[in-house]
Amino acid sequence: MKNIMNLIETLNWRYATKRMTGEVVPQDKINNILEAIRLSASSLGLQPFSVIVIDNPALKSKIQPVAYNQPQIVESSHLLIFAAWENVTQEKIDAYLNQIAEERGVSLESLAGFRGSLEGLLKRSQEDNYNWAARQAYIALGTGLIAAANEGVDATPMEGFNPAGVDELLGLKEKGLRSVSFLTLGYRDAEKDHLASAKKVRRSAEDFYINL
Amino acid sequence: MKNIMNLIETLNWRYATKRMTGEVVPQDKINNILEAIRLSASSLGLQPFSVIVIDNPALKSKIQPVAYNQPQIVESSHLLIFAAWENVTQEKIDAYLNQIAEERGVSLESLAGFRGSLEGLLKRSQEDNYNWAARQAYIALGTGLIAAANEGVDATPMEGFNPAGVDELLGLKEKGLRSVSFLTLGYRDAEKDHLASAKKVRRSAEDFYINL
Repeated sequence: MKNIMNLIETLNWRYATKRMTGEVVPQDKINNILEAIRLSASSLGLQPFSVIVIDNPALKSKIQPVAYNQPQIVESSHLLIFAAWENVTQEKIDAYLNQIAEERGVSLESLAGFRGSLEGLLKRSQEDNYNWAARQAYIALGTGLIAAANEGVDATPMEGFNPAGVDELLGLKEKGLRSVSFLTLGYRDAEKDHLASAKKVRRSAEDFYINL
Repeated sequence: MKNIMNLIETLNWRYATKRMTGEVVPQDKINNILEAIRLSASSLGLQPFSVIVIDNPALKSKIQPVAYNQPQIVESSHLLIFAAWENVTQEKIDAYLNQIAEERGVSLESLAGFRGSLEGLLKRSQEDNYNWAARQAYIALGTGLIAAANEGVDATPMEGFNPAGVDELLGLKEKGLRSVSFLTLGYRDAEKDHLASAKKVRRSAEDFYINL
């Protein structure tokens, strides 16, 4: 039997934490969160992004000024940076197909149709592929948020940073990556964070859903 | 105590189902999946997208041809269509701020700083806001995938459709929405779906993570 989580309760527990205590998150919890992110779905399974994992206080301090000095950057235990591929390349596609062939024990020839789907990406503009890659990273961001809450770890998804500044600081451009979202992991400081006790506000089901 | 799900097991169980049996998913499971999606995080909490819920077989049949005739469309129990806001408007921002003020029992004046962040979106281009909205929808797509698997329900995230055709068919443009992803919900047909037993392939942690 599958172990069913009370996902609704978990989602209600989480919120975008504004202040954290600085307490370190145990490595086994970090590992579970990272593994969940790595297992996330992505279009064609290509995983067109990487996740940068930062627990070094000095480096977090350098990043804070390019992220509007938000306190969670340095008050977190770990800072994850989701960085999308700037473009899709033949090399990345070949590496993926070779991995599938090897891990599933099938021939590359049997993957010809799937190769066609993947290589279709090469016909799109760089900007289209980047936007597509960023969306895939956000599926994983959604997974990361649930994975953290499931471990009782607070998390803050953040778009409030200067992407070009972060990419420059971390040498991401040379790696063909562009930062798209931060996710800080740590523990809420309920005394300092006035949002810790605020009611979660969501559009009503009547407004959010369109039943056809 | 929180009820901790074995999220890794759940993520390993799921896969992008290619063939479904047509069996109907019980309404309580659908409700849990939809509620999880509605509770998903989004930038500034604005939820700049809607989810269209379709269980009508005739309508699914009309959608199938604009989605490369993929069988899951009609073999699913429910078809969810994630549709991003084409743009952010002052009206949407005002509605959101009014809702926060009401539900949290705070004054609109006390939300002035937050209003400034929200209204910053109005200075961006329509295309930037659309791309941003689509990313937020993908966080919810990630939530939906986990919520379905947590209920033992199979799901297929799909980008293989003609967005303009879908928007036209469902009258989404008039609602200021653009379809960005499908999510079919149902049950895998393991006999017809050769991927049901295929090993999940993911980039290695060494390749996927960058530790700084």
